[in-house]
Amino acid sequence: MFKKVLVANRGEIALRIIRACRELDVQSVAVYSEADIDSMHVQLADEAVCIGPGPSKDSYLKPDRIIAAAEITGADAIHPGYGFLSENARFADICTSAGITFIGPSADVIRMMGDKATARASAVANGVPITPGSDLLTDEDEAYAKAMEIGLPVMIKATAGGGGRGMRPCFKAEEFRSLFKAASNEAQACFGNGDCYLEKLVLNPHHIEFQIIADSHGNYIHLGERDCSMQRRNQKIIEECPSPLISQEMRERMGEASVSLIKAINYQNAGTIEYLVDEAGENFYFMEMNTRIQVEHPVTEEVMGCELIKEQIRVAAGEPLSRHVLEANPRGHSIECRINAEDPYNKFMPSPGTISLWYAPGGKGVRVDTHVYSGYSVPPYYDSMIAKLIVTGATREIAIARMKRALGEFMIKGIKTTIPFQQEILNHPDFAAGKYDIGWVARFLEEKGL
Amino acid sequence: MFKKVLVANRGEIALRIIRACRELDVQSVAVYSEADIDSMHVQLADEAVCIGPGPSKDSYLKPDRIIAAAEITGADAIHPGYGFLSENARFADICTSAGITFIGPSADVIRMMGDKATARASAVANGVPITPGSDLLTDEDEAYAKAMEIGLPVMIKATAGGGGRGMRPCFKAEEFRSLFKAASNEAQACFGNGDCYLEKLVLNPHHIEFQIIADSHGNYIHLGERDCSMQRRNQKIIEECPSPLISQEMRERMGEASVSLIKAINYQNAGTIEYLVDEAGENFYFMEMNTRIQVEHPVTEEVMGCELIKEQIRVAAGEPLSRHVLEANPRGHSIECRINAEDPYNKFMPSPGTISLWYAPGGKGVRVDTHVYSGYSVPPYYDSMIAKLIVTGATREIAIARMKRALGEFMIKGIKTTIPFQQEILNHPDFAAGKYDIGWVARFLEEKGL
Repeated sequence: MFKKVLVANRGEIALRIIRACRELDVQSVAVYSEADIDSMHVQLADEAVCIGPGPSKDSYLKPDRIIAAAEITGADAIHPGYGFLSENARFADICTSAGITFIGPSADVIRMMGDKATARASAVANGVPITPGSDLLTDEDEAYAKAMEIGLPVMIKATAGGGGRGMRPCFKAEEFRSLFKAASNEAQACFGNGDCYLEKLVLNPHHIEFQIIADSHGNYIHLGERDCSMQRRNQKIIEECPSPLISQEMRERMGEASVSLIKAINYQNAGTIEYLVDEAGENFYFMEMNTRIQVEHPVTEEVMGCELIKEQIRVAAGEPLSRHVLEANPRGHSIECRINAEDPYNKFMPSPGTISLWYAPGGKGVRVDTHVYSGYSVPPYYDSMIAKLIVTGATREIAIARMKRALGEFMIKGIKTTIPFQQEILNHPDFAAGKYDIGWVARFLEEKGL
Repeated sequence: MFKKVLVANRGEIALRIIRACRELDVQSVAVYSEADIDSMHVQLADEAVCIGPGPSKDSYLKPDRIIAAAEITGADAIHPGYGFLSENARFADICTSAGITFIGPSADVIRMMGDKATARASAVANGVPITPGSDLLTDEDEAYAKAMEIGLPVMIKATAGGGGRGMRPCFKAEEFRSLFKAASNEAQACFGNGDCYLEKLVLNPHHIEFQIIADSHGNYIHLGERDCSMQRRNQKIIEECPSPLISQEMRERMGEASVSLIKAINYQNAGTIEYLVDEAGENFYFMEMNTRIQVEHPVTEEVMGCELIKEQIRVAAGEPLSRHVLEANPRGHSIECRINAEDPYNKFMPSPGTISLWYAPGGKGVRVDTHVYSGYSVPPYYDSMIAKLIVTGATREIAIARMKRALGEFMIKGIKTTIPFQQEILNHPDFAAGKYDIGWVARFLEEKGL
């Protein structure tokens, strides 16, 4: 096991990693920007090193300063958290060159999965479905035959298209030829190139991701899925485990596909494979793989009764996954709300400033991961997330009731937060019914004129 | 289900019950003394009624004021929590007379189990072992025969004895006669009555209690045990679930005995049966039954994945126990520390006053049940417990590491607390080894000269 881990991150995830180190009896080193000197992760780490001014590019994104901090403090491993340098293959290489273990997969695997085309090719090569599509098509008959092969609906896309031009969704076979012509003509007129290709149109898809983890002892496992469809502009707002959409049969199919992919690429450490799943919950399509811990990992931890950060550290240190992880069984239902310092009723404008009062909910089934407290000032430089509220109950119904209770208990003064918006979602019959997809938030905001 | 529940208590348990009501979509009414006006349970309940001055006897122990508050607010049920009126059969009768449901077992059962002799007789009648003993013995030969029958060691006790006089523990058969004579003579000399009786001496016993719960639909179950041996002057300091002492076979034996007892007395609602278990973990003896929820119920909730307060409310409303409770399986290990406003290094003197800073730990596996916050004043009138810190992990080792981490994160200024003492216990090899009994704290304090 490592003697000392440097945490190359800030905010709640830095605190999360420091806590895991403490429980593993491993020393921890915090790094911080000048803007983060009052952050809780600085106070709770065993040591702390300032690595530069507030803006990320001058501190948390500076590999040389982080390596220097590790060398000064004698850290033998670096945990990158999420964001910042966590998926930077070059940084993983630098760590290795400096003789410091990067807690994550190998730089080669990060590189391979970071390139969308290579990642999709790996998926296909290992039997993991991707959204079906075609090469460029110029002949109408050929295009029609291809569309029938892919199956309707399809999206007709001009290769030169953009801003919605040269794009046509097609739902009916009898309309295909005219729509194909229209897209091609529009693209020809606008961009001087009428070449089009087809892509399967997944209607009202869910964002379902699988948590995977593997060690160097031949254990490759998945720990079930998370449903992260409740998102605004690709930013997740509420996540849950398990997904209300996925059947046990579908879970097994997707889980097997995920495990076969990570085996094939000899993945080590924790990662997440993101899929689109169609409305009926019957087909899944590989989107991408994140080669790091995710913000929403706690809902998996709660349901599976395991601890992903500790396992990441164990695996990186060459230990096998814990027995209780290898034998993990799901129990109950968990939901996370990302509490952001934003004004949801003013286009989610960031709302930095001093938190004059911070009272967080507690009690049965409530977990709060946060670096803030009464008197803390939210700096303007970073992601606006100030806390994660995770609730767990024996059933989804209990978890929803608990989330409403817990959100209602929060008392935060001095800044605006997303809590009232999350309360609206939690109180919406669509959420209770589990009937939401990745377009739900956009439609809801439009209906409300927000 | 009830429309409105009045919570006849204060502190963390009042908050706990209010939260359960909120999640069940049941209205809640807080009652409070003048000293508790700033307590969190008053703020989080739907309604709150002041029932008198600070001292308990003028407020929380006044049945008429509580019933009046229930009638004024239209509450249809009263949850008594623990302490105060929770085991007062007369109060349960008064509720019934007023047409308000008392959330707990019937007044008759409270009465029966509240009387030690009747409770022990019920245990014996239902095959639950009690500490073996004898009637009064005057003849030495008869006493010797009885001692051999009970099995050594035994305690020889003079019926008129007191303050340690007229008492002799006996470990060896050959010493019995002389010890019996000595006890009898001493009692005769001191109290004018030399009559003695015998009681099985349970060496270094553990306090093990079983959580039971039953509904009106024929379900009588136990939810495993808690080990509460870490206590000082009968006040529990640290509790855990499961017990490090108890084997699965012993758990089943004790669980079956507990269930047979509650079936026989037609018990309804939650309760706890307390046992002494010998050092070897092989024999158990009924001590008493508490006909209410216990302070330490959360460790059971965490391991069994259920919620006892909600089940109490459901059962009282005539509903069956939830399916996930009937099918509950243990997972992981949970430990609770009772954080008291006391000075552990000055004979545990109460330390009331204003909490100028309150920062509680968070993150994975940490639950804090508390009614206090920064700026809260601990009143001098009540029990000194200000918070319960409950941690849960996949194994006992993980839970212990987590408890150390969480205790270390607490920042409390303005009052003294038991935290440093609990840290000493957590860091002691005896605790890690699970080698502690109900005398451990007393011996530890003596060794330290405290």
